[in-house]
Amino acid sequence: MVGGGQLARMTAGAAARLGVSLSVLDPDPGCPAAVGASVVVADVDDLTALVAFGRGVDVVTFDHERIPVELVEALEAEGVAVAPGSASCRFAFDKADSRARLDDLGFPVPRFEIVSDAAGIVGFGDRYGWPVMAKAARGGYDGRGVSVVEPGDEAAAAALLGPVIVVEELVDFDQELAIMVARRPNGDSVTYPLVSTVQSEGMCVEVVCPAAVPAAVADAARRLAVELADAVELVGVMAIELFLVDDELLVNELATRPHNTGHHTIEACVTSQFEQHLRAILDLPLGSTELRAPAAAMRNVVGSPESHEPTERLAEALEVTGAHVHLYGKQPRAGRKLGHVTALGATVDEARSVAERAADRLNGTASPVGERS
Amino acid sequence: MVGGGQLARMTAGAAARLGVSLSVLDPDPGCPAAVGASVVVADVDDLTALVAFGRGVDVVTFDHERIPVELVEALEAEGVAVAPGSASCRFAFDKADSRARLDDLGFPVPRFEIVSDAAGIVGFGDRYGWPVMAKAARGGYDGRGVSVVEPGDEAAAAALLGPVIVVEELVDFDQELAIMVARRPNGDSVTYPLVSTVQSEGMCVEVVCPAAVPAAVADAARRLAVELADAVELVGVMAIELFLVDDELLVNELATRPHNTGHHTIEACVTSQFEQHLRAILDLPLGSTELRAPAAAMRNVVGSPESHEPTERLAEALEVTGAHVHLYGKQPRAGRKLGHVTALGATVDEARSVAERAADRLNGTASPVGERS
Repeated sequence: MVGGGQLARMTAGAAARLGVSLSVLDPDPGCPAAVGASVVVADVDDLTALVAFGRGVDVVTFDHERIPVELVEALEAEGVAVAPGSASCRFAFDKADSRARLDDLGFPVPRFEIVSDAAGIVGFGDRYGWPVMAKAARGGYDGRGVSVVEPGDEAAAAALLGPVIVVEELVDFDQELAIMVARRPNGDSVTYPLVSTVQSEGMCVEVVCPAAVPAAVADAARRLAVELADAVELVGVMAIELFLVDDELLVNELATRPHNTGHHTIEACVTSQFEQHLRAILDLPLGSTELRAPAAAMRNVVGSPESHEPTERLAEALEVTGAHVHLYGKQPRAGRKLGHVTALGATVDEARSVAERAADRLNGTASPVGERS
Repeated sequence: MVGGGQLARMTAGAAARLGVSLSVLDPDPGCPAAVGASVVVADVDDLTALVAFGRGVDVVTFDHERIPVELVEALEAEGVAVAPGSASCRFAFDKADSRARLDDLGFPVPRFEIVSDAAGIVGFGDRYGWPVMAKAARGGYDGRGVSVVEPGDEAAAAALLGPVIVVEELVDFDQELAIMVARRPNGDSVTYPLVSTVQSEGMCVEVVCPAAVPAAVADAARRLAVELADAVELVGVMAIELFLVDDELLVNELATRPHNTGHHTIEACVTSQFEQHLRAILDLPLGSTELRAPAAAMRNVVGSPESHEPTERLAEALEVTGAHVHLYGKQPRAGRKLGHVTALGATVDEARSVAERAADRLNGTASPVGERS
């Protein structure tokens, strides 16, 4: 796995269970995945290191998309097995390329243009209305590389996000949804139950499952997910972030890897997204995506400006019965994902209440224990 | 954790989730736990190495009981925190000591004597009936160090099992049961649902949960487990193997660590035995032991004389929907535990059928796929 973050760390857990050996390539020998995988220390844009890494394993996959897609193609040209391959990665590693390709293929996407400067942003805003959403084509994650731009801010936004910028309408959605699909090389695919997500400042903070939508919307999302998996020739898992607007689904972004919107699957589904990704890229039979409980909720644990260590509050969080605490072993830093909490329940509200309570304690945003109102 | 076998490997998975750092001490740098823990390479009876290891960690715990209990005492004398402590380990690391202590404390145990030679075995057999069960006080596991002795075989048995031998009646039980209990330093304890076990040649091959026993038996087992945990001053988890004879429970053996009869808890219970052990030894709140499904079953994957590699049959096993496959990364060898499969279900029979089907495929004892009758 190229990249040794929390996704690689959780993939390592699934790999150990299946008796599969996982190596990660990461510049940091103490990366989160180091506890469960052997680490090859290298920069993820070092082609020589990537090729050497790829020649020593059965298949190369990815923990994040901050890798030039040209390197994925170069790896394939060197005969290294890569899954998902560059054809899929193009839909996830470059937001401009992805959006244009999805639009060409006829998938429903927000109105957008690909621009390179402030004038391009202004042109789009003046034509379709302000404010606009602007995204760097490459390198963004967790709200980085994404800005809501008001008139007058376009020069600063262009300087921040350039040289290739996706500018799009600010969608007035009813809900943000996500669906995960897994696909094998032979085209077999399975989808997970549709989830509802809450984002704050571009970062996913909460996921609940199943999403509160009409059955027709859930069915449409499943069909869309399978069509997308086929269209991008997916091998692995892919998360599809969606906007729901008046019962219509718009494709916001794709991630061709395990994803924050699938963390709850560790406890909530028969097969976790991490095991499923391994099954898919190793061409093993896909597992059941069935829910094990009527509802599940996931809350992220995110570093605050005070950057306290959530491990210090582990005992308080574990007092919350039914809270499944996951910590990633990362140095605390404001805005950094440090862990998450999942809870199952008879209802979404019940699961959410448990997950929130434990996550608040880890986040240090809970009232002191015993003084909660 | 002293010992880096599959229990340490699965404990490492739970540790990574909680953000807890696990080190193991094992003579084999490629031991099963090496994928998820840092390995200190040393013999488990090397006191100098154990003390150095113990001084570098918050608490020392154990993956197996093939450690002289005197070394555990020596570690404590050096000021190393050990959980469970030597007072508990005495009930698990030495079968003679354990049996005598349990009997002294008034716990129900099979009729037994502690002997040192063939004459002792003969004396017991002649008094109470043949055949008898004979067990080495130390060093046995998975059927090793345990023999059913017929008249005339006592000399060979004594040579094999000596110098300290527990000789006991061959209990004509109705069922073999097991129950797991966890206890914190402050005395808080929780029990897991009672399970039924199937043993073959001294090795656990199948566990089903819940055990098919009257509610009064399950209640008695829970009470017994809590009393035992208090009596041995347990800190950690402890598995209690029981014989059920006419609605009466006899204590067969104790293991003061995660145990094969608790592997199903990874998927079947809100808190796995591995996470629970970590919570208990780190003095964190204990987790819920509630079942997540009406029933669960676990089958071991055991090396055959042909010693094939179960990984080669992983694809066949993963075709079985709902089978949770765990492989330990061990070299195949006849009689060696190489992995296990857990399944959940609406009934024990349903869960057992799924777990057996997948385990048979990994064991290489299934009919070829597509030709099953």
